Amino acid sequence: MADVVPLTSRVEHDGGSDVVAVEEPMEIRVGGEPLAVTMRTPGHDEELAVGFLHGEGLLAAGTPVRAGLTDDLAANIVEVDATLTRDPGARRFYTTSSCGVCGRGALDEVLLTAPDVGARDTPRVDRALLAGLPDRLRQPGFDATGGLHATGLFDTGGTLLCVREDVGRHNAMDKVLGRALLDGELPLGDRILCVSGRLSFELVQKAAMAGVPVLVGVGAPTSLAVALARECGMTLGGFARGGHVNIYAGHERIN
Amino acid sequence: MADVVPLTSRVEHDGGSDVVAVEEPMEIRVGGEPLAVTMRTPGHDEELAVGFLHGEGLLAAGTPVRAGLTDDLAANIVEVDATLTRDPGARRFYTTSSCGVCGRGALDEVLLTAPDVGARDTPRVDRALLAGLPDRLRQPGFDATGGLHATGLFDTGGTLLCVREDVGRHNAMDKVLGRALLDGELPLGDRILCVSGRLSFELVQKAAMAGVPVLVGVGAPTSLAVALARECGMTLGGFARGGHVNIYAGHERIN
Repeated sequence: MADVVPLTSRVEHDGGSDVVAVEEPMEIRVGGEPLAVTMRTPGHDEELAVGFLHGEGLLAAGTPVRAGLTDDLAANIVEVDATLTRDPGARRFYTTSSCGVCGRGALDEVLLTAPDVGARDTPRVDRALLAGLPDRLRQPGFDATGGLHATGLFDTGGTLLCVREDVGRHNAMDKVLGRALLDGELPLGDRILCVSGRLSFELVQKAAMAGVPVLVGVGAPTSLAVALARECGMTLGGFARGGHVNIYAGHERIN
Repeated sequence: MADVVPLTSRVEHDGGSDVVAVEEPMEIRVGGEPLAVTMRTPGHDEELAVGFLHGEGLLAAGTPVRAGLTDDLAANIVEVDATLTRDPGARRFYTTSSCGVCGRGALDEVLLTAPDVGARDTPRVDRALLAGLPDRLRQPGFDATGGLHATGLFDTGGTLLCVREDVGRHNAMDKVLGRALLDGELPLGDRILCVSGRLSFELVQKAAMAGVPVLVGVGAPTSLAVALARECGMTLGGFARGGHVNIYAGHERIN
């Protein structure tokens, strides 16, 4: 797999100059209607757009999706041609009948929509392999700037299949999963995702929506990330560094 | 200043247990209308709500603002009583007449709204003091979990005035600036903000909206963060660690 080097630029500082990650806004349109604006590192914009929509549960499973930049490339607008599952303008409230907005409501929303990760024929993985995945993430952009997050998609043998870097950590995962979606590879029932940072609820949500059974990160998990992984049957590993990894959910897959 | 310990919980992993940062959704309402839902670490929710609205340019300068949790505390809903400057439903497009969505449009939007940081009587600060601010950030939550971001507000002598930790780095800054707003202290023309991580466009935007002339971070800046700091006259320092800091904008304030 060839390295994918994200867009960087050089800026002066009072002691010389640094290479920094480029950050620019991008608009996502569906059927001509503006749906969201996100700050991102330019490149793989179609992947970002469809990966974002899929992670939000807006794309119906199995229906064709096409995406492309508008003719004026500098416009930073991606048009997505797809059928949406619901009104994208309808806000998500994460509510339950027993309370107001809460984590329980957020968990239920994902569990209702995501493919059943836990019930699949699930891969078993070596603990040492999981602990070592961050070392296999190729991050030329981070190496140059110190300012990019990465997500990598691996097979169960630890081979890196796809990696994306972005100023936004959510974007990096959206791009990886958007690539897989455009290639017709979802759900990813025998794949592992590895992120360069912390593990929030939304990263577990995106992985769950793509059917990924194993997610590991270099950083700490949040309470709600652990809760969601446990309920959807995902294996979640955090603090993967120095040959160690803590497994917070889905121990049954660990050799 | 007493330490503020954010909400944490203990989760089991296969080698023992860890203390993790709590992450829960919260809804912001203005005049009874739901405006946004954000994932955050519970605590200082009113600060988060008004800080968020102010950073987005939704609060008119000088008008009274009140905020409080609804009677059912478990509902995670903050009601804000304030006059908004525009329809919060209107999306921000970051467009210019010469192109589509772009960084130029994003810069212009902030420059039109933010107080003029550059034209103030600005403080001068010692380089060594800036480089050392991350060491003065008190982060009991991060120390316990490894999973929280922090923002600290300092005076020009390097005294820590307010610090907040949150699973979302934007939230930590919103809470600090929301506290200042509720205390009637904006604009903060003689204060310094220090963040525990990277410097994105949106963090510079929030600081600019609060009139803060100096922002420093432990991590790398993005291209658009540097561009915005330069255009609004803010001093921006990155990679503040080990006694060093790179100054990307506003060198004139550095002794």
